[in-house]
Amino acid sequence: MTDQHVLVVFSGGMDSSVALWWARREFSAVSAVSFSYGSKHNARELAAADAICRKLNVPHVEIPLGFIGKYFHSSLLQSGGDIPEGAYNEANMASTVVPFRNGIMLAAAAGLAEDSGCSAVILGNHTGDHAIYPDCRPEFIDGMGRAIEAGTGGRVRLLSPFCSMTKGQIAALGASLGVDFSLTWSCYNGREKHCGKCGTCRERIEAFREAGIPDPTEYED
Amino acid sequence: MTDQHVLVVFSGGMDSSVALWWARREFSAVSAVSFSYGSKHNARELAAADAICRKLNVPHVEIPLGFIGKYFHSSLLQSGGDIPEGAYNEANMASTVVPFRNGIMLAAAAGLAEDSGCSAVILGNHTGDHAIYPDCRPEFIDGMGRAIEAGTGGRVRLLSPFCSMTKGQIAALGASLGVDFSLTWSCYNGREKHCGKCGTCRERIEAFREAGIPDPTEYED
Repeated sequence: MTDQHVLVVFSGGMDSSVALWWARREFSAVSAVSFSYGSKHNARELAAADAICRKLNVPHVEIPLGFIGKYFHSSLLQSGGDIPEGAYNEANMASTVVPFRNGIMLAAAAGLAEDSGCSAVILGNHTGDHAIYPDCRPEFIDGMGRAIEAGTGGRVRLLSPFCSMTKGQIAALGASLGVDFSLTWSCYNGREKHCGKCGTCRERIEAFREAGIPDPTEYED
Repeated sequence: MTDQHVLVVFSGGMDSSVALWWARREFSAVSAVSFSYGSKHNARELAAADAICRKLNVPHVEIPLGFIGKYFHSSLLQSGGDIPEGAYNEANMASTVVPFRNGIMLAAAAGLAEDSGCSAVILGNHTGDHAIYPDCRPEFIDGMGRAIEAGTGGRVRLLSPFCSMTKGQIAALGASLGVDFSLTWSCYNGREKHCGKCGTCRERIEAFREAGIPDPTEYED
C-alpha cells in the first residue's frame, strides 16, 4: 500500500465502484468525488455513490455541473430525448454521448485533488467505452494526464487502472476485492429499478455473465 | 478569414479581449464563454465581458462554476485572504493560484464548443503567466490540446495564439486590432476602480508602457 491520498471519480456505477475498492487496497487514504450534471439517472447514481461512501467511510464530495444539463444536448440528459434500448454499440448509444463529459469531470477533480493534497485522480474507464465515448480512449487519457500533471505543477497525476480491461474483467476484479455490486447503479433511465433494456443495462448483465459471478441487480419485468 | 465557428474563453481582461478581436479577424463566426467561480473580481470581469460582447454583437454564455469558490482555497476567491500588492512575480502572486482553473474552464469550453458546432476553443494565455500559473504553460496547453482533440473525436482543437508572446506584445496587437481597452477589467481586487497596486494591475500598467500605447484605465488614488 502506497502512503498517498488519492481521489476517485465516482459515479456509483460498477466500474468506478471497483476503482474505489481497488484504490482503498492500493493507497493509504481515499476520497471520492461525484458530479451532478442533469442526467436522467443522476439521482440514482448519486444515491448509490453516497450509500457506498457511507458504507466504506470514504469522504465524498458532490460537485454540481448544472451547466451541462442547461446547455448541452444528449439523450442521457433530462433535457434530451429517450434513452435507446438494445445493444451497447456505437450506432445505438451515440445519442447518449455528453460532449467532453469526462474531460470536464477530470478537470474539476484535478483541481479539487490539488487543493486537498491528493496526489492522483483515478478514473475507471475501460475498453468497452472506447468505441462510443471518445473521452474514454487511451489518447484522451494520455493527453488529459499530461495536462493534469503539467497544470498542477507535477502535484497531481491521472491514473486509469482499467483502461485496457473489459467490463467483465473489472467485475471479476471487483468480486475478488469484495465490491458490493448490489449497491451500484448503472441504468441510464434512472427509474425505480434497472430497466434491463438500455445499452448500459445490457452491458452490466453481460459483464456479470463474462465474469461468471451472480448478478444481484433487480431488473424491471 | 477561415470559415469556422470558434469559441473564445473570455474573462473580460486585456488578453482575452485581444483574443476575441483577433478571432473576429481570423474566423467567420465567434462566440465567447465566461465563467463565474467566486473570485473577488468576478462581478467586474463578467460585467466587462458582457459589455464587450454586446458592443461587438458576439454571442456570450456565462457558465457558473460555484464549486470552485465553495471548495478551493486561493486569495483570488471571495472565500480567501487578501490579494497581495506589489510586483507580478512568483513569490508574490502564488496565493492567487486557483488549482487547475484553466483546465476546468477549457474542459467546460471544449464540451460547449463540441455541442454547439465550434471547431476550436481559444485561450489568451501568454509568457508572463508561465512562472506563476502552471496551467498557462506550454506543456499544459499541449496536453490539454491533445485531450480536447482526442476527447471530442477530432471535432474541437485548442488554439493558444499568444502562448509565446508577452503581455506588452498582446497589448500592441490589440491596439492594431482596435481593441477598446477602456472596457476591459484586470484588477484582482474587484472594487469600483482598478487598485493600481495588485500584481495584475502592475502587469496591466507595464503592458501598456511596453506597447507604447495610452493606458485608458482609471486607477484608485
